[in-house]
Amino acid sequence: MSEKFFKSIENDAAGTEYALGKILGELKFTKDGLIPAIAQQFDTGTVLMQAWMNVKSIRKSIESGRVCYWSRSRKKFWFKGEESGNVQSLKEIRIDCDGDSLLLIVDQTGPACHTNRQSCFFLTIKNNDIVVSQ
Amino acid sequence: MSEKFFKSIENDAAGTEYALGKILGELKFTKDGLIPAIAQQFDTGTVLMQAWMNVKSIRKSIESGRVCYWSRSRKKFWFKGEESGNVQSLKEIRIDCDGDSLLLIVDQTGPACHTNRQSCFFLTIKNNDIVVSQ
Repeated sequence: MSEKFFKSIENDAAGTEYALGKILGELKFTKDGLIPAIAQQFDTGTVLMQAWMNVKSIRKSIESGRVCYWSRSRKKFWFKGEESGNVQSLKEIRIDCDGDSLLLIVDQTGPACHTNRQSCFFLTIKNNDIVVSQ
Repeated sequence: MSEKFFKSIENDAAGTEYALGKILGELKFTKDGLIPAIAQQFDTGTVLMQAWMNVKSIRKSIESGRVCYWSRSRKKFWFKGEESGNVQSLKEIRIDCDGDSLLLIVDQTGPACHTNRQSCFFLTIKNNDIVVSQ
């Protein structure tokens, strides 16, 4: 995210509307056109998972109100829960100060993880051991 | 993270000790040897920032008890807060089910963001506008 764009937001008291294209144009994507996206449950604060988005999946998410990632392994759009039914309703997209990471505030239906755990981050390194924390 | 390793953890009732090297060897890094790391404040659940780690910075973090990232822009290790004093004390490292993302449970001294905000994720896309949320 450019310093100029960032300052224009900070100094904006007039309620300027930024077209989505302009906002997306300020994000920093990898060479593959991807940006990491972290999903956090809106009411509990639990970090559910981290996956990847591209410009089109961000647009699809905003338009549909459901989180759509880009699957790097399957090389296709992936509406979370399209097979399991465990969808993520999108409440907010937050952008970090560098414009190179997204925080998705979501309402997760059912477990986020394919192992049927609430969060994908269920393994904890502890004293030369791995603990299954949920 | 391999299915085999994952199953050995799940089926482990004997309290096997996994050397850190073995655990790190199961993680999936990018071609540049990096893995995304999300920092979350342990008591409030606030997602503070997302940055990158490599094997050495993970080891440095565990050994020192303070979070050490790899700075992609400066191409060097970066102990969070080494200049500002706003360090991250490391409480836990969690690994996701795919072994390609880390969740760091931390205790953040002062603000995490260089803009003096608690979290780096302070910009929210909302109705064709960007709202500064903190």
